[in-house]
Amino acid sequence: MTVETNETCRLIASNKVEGTAVYNHEGEKLGAIYNFMVDKRSGQVEYAVLQFGGFLGIGSDYYPLPWQVLTYHESEGGYVIDLDKETLNEAPRYAANAEPDFDETYGRQVHQFYGLTYPY
Amino acid sequence: MTVETNETCRLIASNKVEGTAVYNHEGEKLGAIYNFMVDKRSGQVEYAVLQFGGFLGIGSDYYPLPWQVLTYHESEGGYVIDLDKETLNEAPRYAANAEPDFDETYGRQVHQFYGLTYPY
Repeated sequence: MTVETNETCRLIASNKVEGTAVYNHEGEKLGAIYNFMVDKRSGQVEYAVLQFGGFLGIGSDYYPLPWQVLTYHESEGGYVIDLDKETLNEAPRYAANAEPDFDETYGRQVHQFYGLTYPY
Repeated sequence: MTVETNETCRLIASNKVEGTAVYNHEGEKLGAIYNFMVDKRSGQVEYAVLQFGGFLGIGSDYYPLPWQVLTYHESEGGYVIDLDKETLNEAPRYAANAEPDFDETYGRQVHQFYGLTYPY
């Protein structure tokens, strides 16, 4: 996320993010944010989940994106991520009814894919 | 939030929390979670917002609850907060179209009401 200088815009509402478009640097729309995965204890958002593919939500895949890889672009009206479609095809994902365990092994795997260390 | 010993249940989805009932220790339903307010930069959830009052969402008030004051109770199927209805009547709140600035002054005021220091 970009650092906001305007303190009043420091927070964003979860229900405003859900449904927000996600683009890559080539301006291609990759999908939209489906939900957040939040650490129950600390309240830290670990992933924003990108929904992509399928039709009217049926057959979509869900890509957990570490919060740090997303940047909000006012001009685009959406999030921008440095990822081409070919790379996205290799990214960790799950189907609607096959949510992973989100254990440490999975966390490491997802973060490693995006070039991040885990846990922080 | 309670500390989860089961690592696989460490994360919770934002869209599963939205709409979840909030009770007090007397078992009274105070309302339901409307959304989360998230720090854009860090991804930290600062408030879970309780929706209360009104009818079918019209005329409701919105109470920002610091994440730390909420505890999920499996048996209740909802969040429990140590707050009687009389105290809730005094709690910081806003109307649907009058969202506050969420600046530092507001943050201090809300956290102080719940006996917490701000910023952390």
